Amino acid sequence: MAKARAVIILAAGHGTRMKSALPKPLHAVGGRSMLDWSLALAGECGADRKVVIWGAHGPEVKTRAEAAGAVTALQDPPMGTGHAVLCGRDALAGFDGDVAVLFADTPLIRTGTLEAVFAALDGGANIAVLGFEPENPAGYGRLIENASGALTAIVEEKEASAEQKAVRLCNSGVMAAPAPLLFDLLSKVTNDNAKGEYYLTDIVALGVAAGHTARAVRADADEVLGVNSRANLAEAEAAFQSRARAAAMEAGVTLVAPGTVFFSFDTQIANDVIVEPNVVFGPGVRIETGAVIHAFSHLEGAHIGANASVGPYARLRPGAVLETGAKIGNFVEVKNAVLHAGAKANHLAYIGDADIGAKANIGAGTITCNYDGFFKHRTIVGDGAFIGSNSSLVAPVTIGHGAFTGSGSVITSDVPDDALALSRARQENKPGWAARFRQMMQARKDKSKAK
Amino acid sequence: MAKARAVIILAAGHGTRMKSALPKPLHAVGGRSMLDWSLALAGECGADRKVVIWGAHGPEVKTRAEAAGAVTALQDPPMGTGHAVLCGRDALAGFDGDVAVLFADTPLIRTGTLEAVFAALDGGANIAVLGFEPENPAGYGRLIENASGALTAIVEEKEASAEQKAVRLCNSGVMAAPAPLLFDLLSKVTNDNAKGEYYLTDIVALGVAAGHTARAVRADADEVLGVNSRANLAEAEAAFQSRARAAAMEAGVTLVAPGTVFFSFDTQIANDVIVEPNVVFGPGVRIETGAVIHAFSHLEGAHIGANASVGPYARLRPGAVLETGAKIGNFVEVKNAVLHAGAKANHLAYIGDADIGAKANIGAGTITCNYDGFFKHRTIVGDGAFIGSNSSLVAPVTIGHGAFTGSGSVITSDVPDDALALSRARQENKPGWAARFRQMMQARKDKSKAK
Amino acid sequence: MAKARAVIILAAGHGTRMKSALPKPLHAVGGRSMLDWSLALAGECGADRKVVIWGAHGPEVKTRAEAAGAVTALQDPPMGTGHAVLCGRDALAGFDGDVAVLFADTPLIRTGTLEAVFAALDGGANIAVLGFEPENPAGYGRLIENASGALTAIVEEKEASAEQKAVRLCNSGVMAAPAPLLFDLLSKVTNDNAKGEYYLTDIVALGVAAGHTARAVRADADEVLGVNSRANLAEAEAAFQSRARAAAMEAGVTLVAPGTVFFSFDTQIANDVIVEPNVVFGPGVRIETGAVIHAFSHLEGAHIGANASVGPYARLRPGAVLETGAKIGNFVEVKNAVLHAGAKANHLAYIGDADIGAKANIGAGTITCNYDGFFKHRTIVGDGAFIGSNSSLVAPVTIGHGAFTGSGSVITSDVPDDALALSRARQENKPGWAARFRQMMQARKDKSKAK
Repeated sequence: MAKARAVIILAAGHGTRMKSALPKPLHAVGGRSMLDWSLALAGECGADRKVVIWGAHGPEVKTRAEAAGAVTALQDPPMGTGHAVLCGRDALAGFDGDVAVLFADTPLIRTGTLEAVFAALDGGANIAVLGFEPENPAGYGRLIENASGALTAIVEEKEASAEQKAVRLCNSGVMAAPAPLLFDLLSKVTNDNAKGEYYLTDIVALGVAAGHTARAVRADADEVLGVNSRANLAEAEAAFQSRARAAAMEAGVTLVAPGTVFFSFDTQIANDVIVEPNVVFGPGVRIETGAVIHAFSHLEGAHIGANASVGPYARLRPGAVLETGAKIGNFVEVKNAVLHAGAKANHLAYIGDADIGAKANIGAGTITCNYDGFFKHRTIVGDGAFIGSNSSLVAPVTIGHGAFTGSGSVITSDVPDDALALSRARQENKPGWAARFRQMMQARKDKSKAK
Repeated sequence: MAKARAVIILAAGHGTRMKSALPKPLHAVGGRSMLDWSLALAGECGADRKVVIWGAHGPEVKTRAEAAGAVTALQDPPMGTGHAVLCGRDALAGFDGDVAVLFADTPLIRTGTLEAVFAALDGGANIAVLGFEPENPAGYGRLIENASGALTAIVEEKEASAEQKAVRLCNSGVMAAPAPLLFDLLSKVTNDNAKGEYYLTDIVALGVAAGHTARAVRADADEVLGVNSRANLAEAEAAFQSRARAAAMEAGVTLVAPGTVFFSFDTQIANDVIVEPNVVFGPGVRIETGAVIHAFSHLEGAHIGANASVGPYARLRPGAVLETGAKIGNFVEVKNAVLHAGAKANHLAYIGDADIGAKANIGAGTITCNYDGFFKHRTIVGDGAFIGSNSSLVAPVTIGHGAFTGSGSVITSDVPDDALALSRARQENKPGWAARFRQMMQARKDKSKAK
Repeated sequence: MAKARAVIILAAGHGTRMKSALPKPLHAVGGRSMLDWSLALAGECGADRKVVIWGAHGPEVKTRAEAAGAVTALQDPPMGTGHAVLCGRDALAGFDGDVAVLFADTPLIRTGTLEAVFAALDGGANIAVLGFEPENPAGYGRLIENASGALTAIVEEKEASAEQKAVRLCNSGVMAAPAPLLFDLLSKVTNDNAKGEYYLTDIVALGVAAGHTARAVRADADEVLGVNSRANLAEAEAAFQSRARAAAMEAGVTLVAPGTVFFSFDTQIANDVIVEPNVVFGPGVRIETGAVIHAFSHLEGAHIGANASVGPYARLRPGAVLETGAKIGNFVEVKNAVLHAGAKANHLAYIGDADIGAKANIGAGTITCNYDGFFKHRTIVGDGAFIGSNSSLVAPVTIGHGAFTGSGSVITSDVPDDALALSRARQENKPGWAARFRQMMQARKDKSKAK
């Protein structure tokens, strides 16, 4: 890397068309806010200094940016993109590396693409502009290059000649320059235009006029999709999902119906994992080879070991760990719990704050009673233990290795290894009761109808 | 509105290609039968008088139409669309307002579109015909307009000149005229054609020949999609869903994956609601701002308050009401029950015929035993109560404010405020039992294999 | 059928791009391995003799093929498709019928299409080649036919004239010939080419040169989609699902959202069944008329009777049988169990290894405790019985006709007809306990925060 790198992320726009109380940069794509996508992109390109420009209507943006390690600068009132970038000048005082300007509503730029923008500066350009070729370029500013490939101008649609309109390469708005040059050019931008705004784009004309070299870098059109509405947000989500699905399949994961599987930004899945239709991966999921994720499963913050089996209808919440060959079946919820190798909870159960021993079998309907209304407590189940159906394990409690609990038991005290624990009232049969009850109820029903 | 309005809805067709015992007009789109779509459309355009023409093979159509407040007329035997409309004449005896003819297998006409058809009459036309421009007009009758925009003829494909074939505006079949003119023209229609049927379309030629003015009104092609097969029905459903999804996003609802969310005709969702992938809204759902509907949820007849949280895997049935901030989690079913503000039922529970107090916590595995085989009874849980896991609440029963119930309890009597209720057998541990049991069972297993 | 038929299925390829430990032919489409698709196709065309060519890296292919009744031959080392077919010669020693060569990574060929290939031989051709017309033929070998419709050559793209490149009919690789001719021609194929391989395709040129007649048979392009990657596998799955959905709708099944319903190769659904969005059919499902399969249901090896109701969120596993009008509701799992006519299990239950009598009602939260850690046992519930909520039925156990069980009971002994069975500890209320508990816990919580 030739020079130090920074980014200024413009996150001060109103996003009125979102019709949301939440500032636009905090809306999520692939389980991560668009602001965080921009910050992550910067980090992946070695930009340690990150400046987020926020607006007075969106203090949550400031809060989130600072929590994520960025510095922030307020733009108030908003006077255009050029003005917004200038608001970041103080935050980068003394910094003489390269600065890229990103937009917090454009979450899909690939790392390699921003890397290429910075690399254009490393390669001798003074200004680098990210362009793309949309299907229909109408309405976009065109990036005009000369015969030697230098960017000579950005021409707005309405001022473009017929020849210029034929150019397909359009301006994404993303650009980069060394900090001193960037701020010097920005200080010369005027607001002598219809909207009375200071436009970042104008630095290209000013720079070229002053003898600086500009260069266009190409992105795929889907990378620079800007989010201005919920429909755009859904399009960005769809584009992210398409990428994630293709990458998973390329890595040797079977997606039976790719369009029904939803990834998060950080989902990690090894080869020879099978993912059936209708599976949602929230953030923080890692799956080892040979595991099967059956239909209608929902995983978040979970680590699934090799050859483990999940679902259908399994809900794994943060802290769920399935070791090799463990199995979680239908209508089972697991939270902050480890199932050691070969442990099983196949049917209708809640396993929370627990440690389930290797090859232990958790019967249908078992509930770990982990919460007393004030504190959470842990349940420990030993290796090879057999928890009877409909058991309630009242934590804190330990069931020993190889122990059994009887169906329907409420286990409040520890159970020694190899013991049976029971808490069960004796069964009574009352002969003829049901026949009499039916007769009585039917009579009551007939009476109520007769009224 | 210039004149009184009526509709005649043609619902007598056989729908043979549906291969169904259910008459075609009663098949549903967006959770509402196609017949009901037509009736609702009429109502939205101020057509108080609705006449449904049914066929002898479909008495369920008559029953449903009358239940919905329409009058009905039998067409038997069927002798074409013109004949079908004439069957409605007696039902509109003395009515001299405007009549639109609708088809009960064309559920997607927008209110504004039918309004425009009536408005054409208000604006001076004697006959109004709804046209559309399909991608491929081949096979449709063309609507021929003169230089001043009047409709001069409907020309069938096979009788069309090359110039007429180049016309893209096609006949949808929907038309309107003042009742006296409509029936007068229909009485002059003949069945002098290949099929020996009386065609409604013919009134345009007859009317124009008699000096009346006709006018075409334009619909989008997707509005006049006719349903003749299950595949068509699925297309109509898809078109409805597309509209509903776009409208929700436009209103500020986040649909993470719009194509996986299914609306009903009457779903109401406020802005800043987030709907995750794979959610089904049956009829009668209303959701307030800030609520989150997690993946794999199914709601019907439910009212979700502001900032409430639903799912994943929540099933809310009619009468479910979640007040502000209430939470229903995974594998929980709620029916005819109110959860007051901040109440929670996070895991594997059935809450039926119940009233759950503010901030009450319903433990995992809790079941309201609301049915005794004959009658349904109510369960009342007080504010701030804490229902232990795996509890059975045998209704009718009241749990007081701030009361606790022990895990695994069967609560058959009322619990006072702030009391603890328990019904629990003492836990017994039988040391070594499990080891002996395993030995015995393993021996039995070995023996059975040895055989 | 004019002659005996056989197939040789090439299943020895490495499938490196699958990035899988599982040999490519064993990856599944529509719930059936691609190898099994080929074997089934052969069987449907009356090819009783099936020879599967496997490679040394994929012994699982041999195992599966033999289990499915095929004979197998090893190709080791691999030296091209022609060599692979020759490896099957001994397995067909003495067979003088017709042989078709299929590929175990091409699962979508229709029965009628392979039938047409064999029929071309019956009709006089000596060699039949399956062709298709892709959207873009670039890269494929072209099938060149003369004026009388005979196939005269297969020309590779790079050796094709401009005129030949304009031919849209391409070589799928599938071909057929009488066994003696096939092996005779193959013995003359040389490996005098860039890759040094023996190509099956070359038999056409050799055959035509020797005066034999070849003929092309046409397939739809989607039939010959070859699977070389997980993305291809997903495309094949999608193509299969499209066919299955269209066929179901054509047969009178309502699919509310066809793209969200997943069929297996053998799913059977009668007309007037309604399938809501997001339903997965594993292998072995049969559904009778009038049944409704609600959203988010998962069925496998299940037989659903007329007018039965399944789901939402029902999970029916192998051996589940619902007789007429039976009902399985949300979060209910059924395995190896019969629900007789009108029986219901509406909420959160596990019904395994059971026989549920007509009109019996299984309460919410009921669990059949069918497994003791070693053996599975059966639960019998009589006609009209009423199983209270949260019951545990400890198998083997029989609940009599018309019997009741109390909520929360653990039923370990048989219950006579019309009796009530209870196992329930008496409820105790401890006044004021909850208030004191809250006070104590709150103090503890405050203390732990103060630290």
